[in-house]
Amino acid sequence: MPVFFSAHSAGLIMAVSTMIYNRFPATLNTDVTRVSVICARQVGVDHHLLDTKKLSSQGKRLSESLSKLVQLTIETPYRRNLRNHNWVLVNEIVEKHNAPAKSPKEVIADKWRELHGSMDWEDLLDPLHPLLRREIVKYGEFAQATYDAFDFDSFSEYCGSCRYNRNKLFEKVGLDGSGYIVTKYIYAMSHIEMPQWLEKSHLLDTWSKDSNWMGYVAVSDDVETCRIGRRDIVVAWRGTVSPAEWYEDFQREMEPIGAGDAKVEHGFLSIYSSKSKSTRYNKSSAAEQVMKEVKKLVEFYRRQGEEVSLTITGHSLGGALALLNAYDAAVAIPDLPVTVISFGAPRVGNIAFRDELQRLGVKTLRVVVKQDLVPRMPGVVFNEALQLFEEITGTLEWIYTHVGVELKLDINSSPYLKRRFNPLGFHCPETYLHLVDGFSSSSLTFRSDARRDVALVNKCCDMLVDELRIPPSWYQLENKGLVRNEHGRWVKPTRDPEDIPSPIGEENAFPSPNSDPEKLSRIQH
Amino acid sequence: MPVFFSAHSAGLIMAVSTMIYNRFPATLNTDVTRVSVICARQVGVDHHLLDTKKLSSQGKRLSESLSKLVQLTIETPYRRNLRNHNWVLVNEIVEKHNAPAKSPKEVIADKWRELHGSMDWEDLLDPLHPLLRREIVKYGEFAQATYDAFDFDSFSEYCGSCRYNRNKLFEKVGLDGSGYIVTKYIYAMSHIEMPQWLEKSHLLDTWSKDSNWMGYVAVSDDVETCRIGRRDIVVAWRGTVSPAEWYEDFQREMEPIGAGDAKVEHGFLSIYSSKSKSTRYNKSSAAEQVMKEVKKLVEFYRRQGEEVSLTITGHSLGGALALLNAYDAAVAIPDLPVTVISFGAPRVGNIAFRDELQRLGVKTLRVVVKQDLVPRMPGVVFNEALQLFEEITGTLEWIYTHVGVELKLDINSSPYLKRRFNPLGFHCPETYLHLVDGFSSSSLTFRSDARRDVALVNKCCDMLVDELRIPPSWYQLENKGLVRNEHGRWVKPTRDPEDIPSPIGEENAFPSPNSDPEKLSRIQH
Repeated sequence: MPVFFSAHSAGLIMAVSTMIYNRFPATLNTDVTRVSVICARQVGVDHHLLDTKKLSSQGKRLSESLSKLVQLTIETPYRRNLRNHNWVLVNEIVEKHNAPAKSPKEVIADKWRELHGSMDWEDLLDPLHPLLRREIVKYGEFAQATYDAFDFDSFSEYCGSCRYNRNKLFEKVGLDGSGYIVTKYIYAMSHIEMPQWLEKSHLLDTWSKDSNWMGYVAVSDDVETCRIGRRDIVVAWRGTVSPAEWYEDFQREMEPIGAGDAKVEHGFLSIYSSKSKSTRYNKSSAAEQVMKEVKKLVEFYRRQGEEVSLTITGHSLGGALALLNAYDAAVAIPDLPVTVISFGAPRVGNIAFRDELQRLGVKTLRVVVKQDLVPRMPGVVFNEALQLFEEITGTLEWIYTHVGVELKLDINSSPYLKRRFNPLGFHCPETYLHLVDGFSSSSLTFRSDARRDVALVNKCCDMLVDELRIPPSWYQLENKGLVRNEHGRWVKPTRDPEDIPSPIGEENAFPSPNSDPEKLSRIQH
Repeated sequence: MPVFFSAHSAGLIMAVSTMIYNRFPATLNTDVTRVSVICARQVGVDHHLLDTKKLSSQGKRLSESLSKLVQLTIETPYRRNLRNHNWVLVNEIVEKHNAPAKSPKEVIADKWRELHGSMDWEDLLDPLHPLLRREIVKYGEFAQATYDAFDFDSFSEYCGSCRYNRNKLFEKVGLDGSGYIVTKYIYAMSHIEMPQWLEKSHLLDTWSKDSNWMGYVAVSDDVETCRIGRRDIVVAWRGTVSPAEWYEDFQREMEPIGAGDAKVEHGFLSIYSSKSKSTRYNKSSAAEQVMKEVKKLVEFYRRQGEEVSLTITGHSLGGALALLNAYDAAVAIPDLPVTVISFGAPRVGNIAFRDELQRLGVKTLRVVVKQDLVPRMPGVVFNEALQLFEEITGTLEWIYTHVGVELKLDINSSPYLKRRFNPLGFHCPETYLHLVDGFSSSSLTFRSDARRDVALVNKCCDMLVDELRIPPSWYQLENKGLVRNEHGRWVKPTRDPEDIPSPIGEENAFPSPNSDPEKLSRIQH
């Protein structure tokens, strides 16, 4: 079984030994206090000793932590020689400074179904079709916008909200040319204590103590609709930049979803479906908010005789919520083409959940960076690779599994990225977008004609080689938003009233997509 | 000798026992391997055990580290109850948002000598004379400017330089109303390896590999000269924000200065006096640069029949350089009134150095925050308190001593500051300026009519209580200086040519103080 000894080998063996011990403690001689765990490493075979006495007391939790550690040890060091970065690279980048950062928009009206997975992206991923590449980047930038506009400032009374109202969002995050209009903001809360999930203000009097802005619904304008061949509704879910919480959080319990055997991670489900009468922004759950808006939009455009699609995107936790959302939408709105394009998303549910999504016709493209740890969670121990052990474990319905088709990216493919172990950098959405932009095929090197601005990678992490002279984590406000008033005092300006989150404002959301008739006629002729 | 058991007790005793052991090892019974060190703590008496065998092998170095640790343990925890900060404080601050942040400028032409220490600031410090307070803040802000304008960006090819040319400096750091004109920039290098001293670019092709911008010379314009009663030349020396290096650096060797017994810390002297033909900015030393400019200015204004003074200021390392500079100036220019106003400066030299300065008529006002650790260095072990042990040690000429008159400030005096141990925050120059601004006398509380903007304290540290809603370390550039070019790409703009440090430009520096005749006549009538 050499396959099992590749990626998750140590975790697997440890998990199995743990399970054996937990299920059949009597069969083990108590004098045998050590279980030898063999890890097939890249460099050879190593031995780890595991005290089973501790296992019996601390149980599953310890074995998980250990397997996690071993996992990291196996995968961490890049044994490849680092390339000698040189000035050719730098000059290349400097030359690009004067080239447009966007690819031209081509009409995909007759190809959109394939690009959205109607044939499960067969023959489109490796090599990656240029039109699909652009669509993936487009949706990825919608997901990225949920980070760029989020108020992370714990000294702001609006911490955890979006810094701009929905009419200004795309303009403020540089997506004014996207061809989409934001129609609704989504807020979420969680009844379950999730470490580091909720961004909270240090202050007492805040806009909300329970809820965070969790994403938005947008819809293509007439010009874009014409280009892409249907009215496209987008839901973009915000995730979490720091992967740290997932380490603490993985391998939690599952909860049933729907009437069948489908089960999903209960933390994700809690964020997606929690509500409370006592809150201002979650009298309805994120699920209810988003589904109400999507249904409204679908009905509105279908009534006008238009073809409608739903594309749900998200990074990390946002990718998990996208799947739950897709399940909901596919159940609720028959015949609606539902596509999920997720980035660095963890596993969400069990095999029955995956099968349900498949049965419902939900198409999922999972973009995954090989070195990113988050997509391995939860279920580092109990994942789809365990299927062959079903007869031993009998826990198939508790095994986490990934859904859909994978587009695998590799940090090592880009000459612009540092090679050293950087779990935050590997997980950052801008790293994903950079690698998608440069991906030709698994056998080819980074596209030399990739146009996306490489500097964006370092927005919130330290991934670019020093020669590029882009400082790490450069995306920041001048003086953290403080401004000097007319008396020379540094003050935090009050937020523009129209940018203050209003639960009433959100209730009145309704599509009013505008369009540029001139542009429209240009694209139609 | 209860006096010795207060501040430096543990360090002192340990130092003495170390010395005894080092000098007379034979007199110690080798069976006696432990020396009991008694520390008089605020809360009582405690015992620390010290293995003298280790001392013999590791020598002085270990005893220093130990005494440093004990020192920190003694002084660290504030046993005072924290005040309950409340909304009164917040409201007070919000009210102040609409009050001017500057005090009116009063004419001090007939008082400047006393304010500059001619009577050693007798009866001016406790209570602090309001006019003196404003002058201290004025010079402190000149020192602060050396930090605000410094390019700390290690991804900049100009890292270690001033971000603006000298004509723009004061305007850019908000000192355009100061009444002074910058005439010269000073650059320094060091032949001695000093940990963390030199700020260096990550890049290969930088403006300078050896030198840092280390401060500037400025001179009062006609209006200010009229107000303050003489032509005032200011030298402001840049220091180091992080105190970490001093921990590593303290207790180094001394070197002779001048012809007598005076000795100073050799690291400071190296920065002040190093030069090298192979460098671009230090073909002459900082000492030579500054003295050449000061002499030129003094001659220029004296030739016009004006009275001239020299005020040298600096924070931390900058305060140390100020003293060396004052010594130089007093030796070189007879009858020039030389005053040093330093903030959080470490000790610089031995007792003979102090006596020399006194003999030369240099007046020094040392502003010190009680909780700041830097002013205790170097010489935590071998300092002026050791004088009474001269007969034992015979090392008087190697004992570090402070110079001049002290203005002692207390973190606990300000209701706006956090109480928790924060060595960086205690040392920050803005913390100093805040405490000076609020200081009435050692027995009175913080001035309620202090006008200086409290928000400034948090520029580079985390000292303000959360209720004030001022984020920590807020002084930062938008997107770390990156801007979007016309193609939508994020680039580091090339520096304005006139702001690129030019060794030739600095050679041509000469006074051209302008003045506002209208303002001048207003103040004269």
